[in-house]
Amino acid sequence: MPFIIVEMWDGRTVDQKKIVVEGITATFVKIGVPAEAVHIAIHDVPKHNWADGGKLASEPKSP
Amino acid sequence: MPFIIVEMWDGRTVDQKKIVVEGITATFVKIGVPAEAVHIAIHDVPKHNWADGGKLASEPKSP
Amino acid sequence: MPFIIVEMWDGRTVDQKKIVVEGITATFVKIGVPAEAVHIAIHDVPKHNWADGGKLASEPKSP
Amino acid sequence: MPFIIVEMWDGRTVDQKKIVVEGITATFVKIGVPAEAVHIAIHDVPKHNWADGGKLASEPKSP
Amino acid sequence: MPFIIVEMWDGRTVDQKKIVVEGITATFVKIGVPAEAVHIAIHDVPKHNWADGGKLASEPKSP
Amino acid sequence: MPFIIVEMWDGRTVDQKKIVVEGITATFVKIGVPAEAVHIAIHDVPKHNWADGGKLASEPKSP
Repeated sequence: MPFIIVEMWDGRTVDQKKIVVEGITATFVKIGVPAEAVHIAIHDVPKHNWADGGKLASEPKSP
Repeated sequence: MPFIIVEMWDGRTVDQKKIVVEGITATFVKIGVPAEAVHIAIHDVPKHNWADGGKLASEPKSP
Repeated sequence: MPFIIVEMWDGRTVDQKKIVVEGITATFVKIGVPAEAVHIAIHDVPKHNWADGGKLASEPKSP
Repeated sequence: MPFIIVEMWDGRTVDQKKIVVEGITATFVKIGVPAEAVHIAIHDVPKHNWADGGKLASEPKSP
Repeated sequence: MPFIIVEMWDGRTVDQKKIVVEGITATFVKIGVPAEAVHIAIHDVPKHNWADGGKLASEPKSP
Repeated sequence: MPFIIVEMWDGRTVDQKKIVVEGITATFVKIGVPAEAVHIAIHDVPKHNWADGGKLASEPKSP
């Protein structure tokens, strides 16, 4: 407790992921959760599998 | 708002994914959600990671 | 196959949810999925459990 | 982009949730994501719906 | 490791949930995972938030 | 009904996944769910995308 799932575009480096999991874990520690109880899974989502506003993130933006 | 996660077998083309994200987004627009507020992530799940009725989708069906 | 999870603010009516599940299902039928294979779960998320830009959706917007 | 789902026990206050969403969002800003692109949904999970080690979190611990 | 999310209709008793979490945990123990590493969250989904084949599970079936 | 999502480290064999989906499905049958109504998706999460206690599972443990 707790478990956190991160859905984000793929392409992030391992160093960026370290920053992400350290920051999220430190946040839960602030509200009294022991660090070792924080579990995180990151899903690297390719841009052709992600959409905002009905357009795949891999599609060129309209001008 | 909203966020939609699609779990489906891998193997779909980008054109099929375009149809999926356009259709889902248009559906939320019908109930008053602005298109740009609709976010979608598709998880391509390999058949050996998917099961129905206790059998992996990659296993041959019994006759 | 497929399974779709919708994360949205609570407060939608059952009629709006009917429109949502019919529209999403029809979208998958367009790419060749049989309607009966489409499964959907809607998570009604209270606004105090949802954040955009680091602010809970239940907080008043800054002017 | 990104979308974060937090599964945690229910019972947290709105002030604790504010700390959580501010901290998670600030973390993504550190790796270059604009704050307004960070979306978070918190699922409050009752202890009788949560298990570690095969025991519901609502069950008394063995001595 | 691992984390399991169960999406199911609400209405199950705590005793049924105990059977579910014990059975899932025992399954992972069979492949070498220590029981205490298995974490499970159950989402109780109301029938009006669940759809199969484009129909909410709360709707009467057509004859 | 139900749908189960398994988040686990990648590297498991197909035979281990068979054991997992058979065991989870058999568990739901015990509480009265027909086997064919049980759907499962496994997400293979690389260790550099998984964190416990604020450390990626791919990082060496401190002595």
